[in-house]
Amino acid sequence: MQVNTETIFLTRGVPAVEALPDEWLAGCMQAVLQSDGATVLQYGNIGGYPPLRKMLAEDFKVSPEEVLVGNGSLHLQDLLAACLIKPGDTVLVEQPSYDRAIKTFRRRGARVIGIPLEQDGLNLEKLEAELRRQVPAFLYLIPDFQNPTGITTSEPKRREILSLAEKYGFWVIEDVPYRLLRYRESTPPPLLREINPTRVITISSYSKLISPAMRVGYMVGPAELVAKVTRLAEDTILTPVLVSQAAVAEFRRRGLLETNIERLKALYTPRLEAMLDALQRYLPQVTPLSRPEGGFFVSIMLPPEANYSNLFNRAKEAGLMLTEGSTFFAEWADDGNQDSTQASRFVRLPFPAIEPAQIEEGVRRLAGLI
Amino acid sequence: MQVNTETIFLTRGVPAVEALPDEWLAGCMQAVLQSDGATVLQYGNIGGYPPLRKMLAEDFKVSPEEVLVGNGSLHLQDLLAACLIKPGDTVLVEQPSYDRAIKTFRRRGARVIGIPLEQDGLNLEKLEAELRRQVPAFLYLIPDFQNPTGITTSEPKRREILSLAEKYGFWVIEDVPYRLLRYRESTPPPLLREINPTRVITISSYSKLISPAMRVGYMVGPAELVAKVTRLAEDTILTPVLVSQAAVAEFRRRGLLETNIERLKALYTPRLEAMLDALQRYLPQVTPLSRPEGGFFVSIMLPPEANYSNLFNRAKEAGLMLTEGSTFFAEWADDGNQDSTQASRFVRLPFPAIEPAQIEEGVRRLAGLI
Repeated sequence: MQVNTETIFLTRGVPAVEALPDEWLAGCMQAVLQSDGATVLQYGNIGGYPPLRKMLAEDFKVSPEEVLVGNGSLHLQDLLAACLIKPGDTVLVEQPSYDRAIKTFRRRGARVIGIPLEQDGLNLEKLEAELRRQVPAFLYLIPDFQNPTGITTSEPKRREILSLAEKYGFWVIEDVPYRLLRYRESTPPPLLREINPTRVITISSYSKLISPAMRVGYMVGPAELVAKVTRLAEDTILTPVLVSQAAVAEFRRRGLLETNIERLKALYTPRLEAMLDALQRYLPQVTPLSRPEGGFFVSIMLPPEANYSNLFNRAKEAGLMLTEGSTFFAEWADDGNQDSTQASRFVRLPFPAIEPAQIEEGVRRLAGLI
Repeated sequence: MQVNTETIFLTRGVPAVEALPDEWLAGCMQAVLQSDGATVLQYGNIGGYPPLRKMLAEDFKVSPEEVLVGNGSLHLQDLLAACLIKPGDTVLVEQPSYDRAIKTFRRRGARVIGIPLEQDGLNLEKLEAELRRQVPAFLYLIPDFQNPTGITTSEPKRREILSLAEKYGFWVIEDVPYRLLRYRESTPPPLLREINPTRVITISSYSKLISPAMRVGYMVGPAELVAKVTRLAEDTILTPVLVSQAAVAEFRRRGLLETNIERLKALYTPRLEAMLDALQRYLPQVTPLSRPEGGFFVSIMLPPEANYSNLFNRAKEAGLMLTEGSTFFAEWADDGNQDSTQASRFVRLPFPAIEPAQIEEGVRRLAGLI
C-alpha cells in the first residue's frame, strides 16, 4: 500500500465501500420484485412500503400511522422543517452539529442557534438561557455518537432536556443513524423517545447500516404530525422509491440486518482504535472531544496556540483532505461571548471509510501542520 | 366480470398494474448490483447514475452536464421552481393543466396563471396579452397528449411560443412523459428543444414507460441551470436513489424499453378506442377536447346546460370515481372575462389503468348523471 504518497480523505462520513452488501441486496431486490411487484412499482403508499412501516412501528412500539418512510432522512428533515418552522422561528442545534441539517433548517426559514456541547451533551445552563430568550420551533439533537463530535448525550441530560421541552413547549428531534453501530459492550442510554415520547420526533435511516444510496430513512412521531409531513411529501415527490424500501424489509426478514451490523462492527472497531491511537501518538497534547464507543466520528479542538490558520488548504497541499471546521457551526447562542476561533480550531475525523494505515498516516500529516 | 356493480375509477393517471415489468426489472436490479454495487449503493453521483445520464445526453444530443436525473420528475419540477421563481413572479400554465404542477409552483411562491388551451395548443393571443402584462419566470407546457386534456400542441404553435419566449425573455418548461406513448402511426411534432433549445428546459420520466414507483425522472437544460438545480438537490436529498436509475440504464441496454413501449401500446390502444367509442355512444352531444393519438387522457367539457352541479359526489354515489375538474384550473389570465363554470364542467377521463368494459361502464354512468 502506497500510504505515504496517496491522498488521505478525512472528509465525509461515508460507509466503507467494501462494507456495502451488494450481493445480499441483489437477492432481496429480486425477491420483492417477484413477490410484490404490483406494490413496489406502482404509485401509492406515500407513507412508505407497508411491511417496512409495520416493522418500524414494532421496533418503536408505535402504530404504523406514527411512522413515515421516505427517500433518506435528510429529505424527511427538510419536509419536517417545512412543517414546523414559521417565519421568525429559531431552531436550536448542538454546537457543532451536522452541517447539512443546519443548512436545511436555514433554507426552511429558521435562524439556527448552536448550544455548546460538553462531553456528556448540551450545556444545559446555556440551553435554558436561550429558551428564556425565545422558545424554538425545535431542538435538533444527534444524541448517539454525534456528527461531527462523536459525543453521546448522557441519560441524565436526556431527561433534563425532555423536562425543558415540557416546561417551555418545543419539539425535540433526535436523529439516531449511528445508534446501532456501538463497538463496545457498554449499555446504550435510552432513546429520548423511550424516556418520554410526548415531544420527541425520532429520525433515522439505513444509510449507515446497509447503503446510503438506497435512500431509506424514516421518522417516528405523533400521527397528526406524521400525516402533515406525509401530505407535504406527497405534494413534493408523489411517492417514495418503494423498491429500495421493500429490499430493506426483505433484508430484515432474512436476518441480514443483524449480520451486516456485526460485519460493520468488525470492520469499523479497529478503525476507531487506529484513530484514537494515532491521536495519542501524534497529537498527545490534544484531547479528543470524546472517546466514542461507536458511530463514524472522532473530533478534536486544536488548542488556541496551535497553527490552525488556513489549515484546510495547507492540509490539502499535504495530501490530506479535511472538512472545514466552520461548516459545523451555527450562530452562537450568546453571541459575542464565545471564543470565535473555535470554529477554525475544530477538526472532524471520520474513520469508517479508510483503512487503519491510512488513518495513522492522515493523523501524522495533520500533526505535522499544526 | 362484475362490471355492473364494481366501482369504476376514472381518477388518477396511473399505468395499468398488469403492465409493470416486474420480472424484467428484477433481472436488471440484480445485474447492476452485481456489476456496479459500489456505485449504486454509495453516496455521490448527485447528478444521477452516470451511465443513464450519458444515455439521456445522447438521446437529446447534449452533454451529460446538461442532464440531471432525480427521484421522479415532480421533485425536479419542485427544485427547478425553487431555482427559477423569485418573489412576485408569475408562472404561466396551460388552462387546464397538471394539478400537482400548479400546486408545486404555488408552493414555491409563484402566482400561477392559466392561458386557455385550444385544440392545437395555447391561445396565443391570450398568451401574448398576458406577457405584455408581466413576463413570467417560466411557461410550463405538456405539449404531447397533455394532462389533463389529451391535447397536443401543433408545430406552428410550438414555433410561435418559442418566438415569444425569445421576444419577452422567459423559460419554457416542456414536460413530456407521455411523448413516446403514441398509439397511431402519425408523425409527432418536434420537441420544443428540437426547434430551438435556447430557452427550453425539457422534463420527463420513466414513470409511464416502466414504473412510477421507481421514481426515475430527468431534466435537460443549460449546464449552468442544471448545476444550480443539482446543488439544491444535493442540499435537499444528498443523493438520488441510484439503484433504480441503474436498473433503468440496464433495462435500456437490454433493449427492454422499446419492447415494453410496444407492450404498453398494445395494451392501451384498445382502451383509448373504448373511451372514444363510449363517449360517442353515451355522450354524443359532447365533443371531447381532443381525440388524442397517445398518452393517458381523454377529456370533455360538459355543455353549460348539462347537470354538472355536485358531479363529483353524485358520481361517487353512482360508483364512479372522478377527479374534480377545478383541480386542474389555475387563476385565469384575464380574470373576470372567462366563463367561471368551465372548471366545474371539465371532466378528465384517464383510460390506461382500466379495461375496455370498465371504461364503457364508467362513461355510461357519467352520461346517466348529466
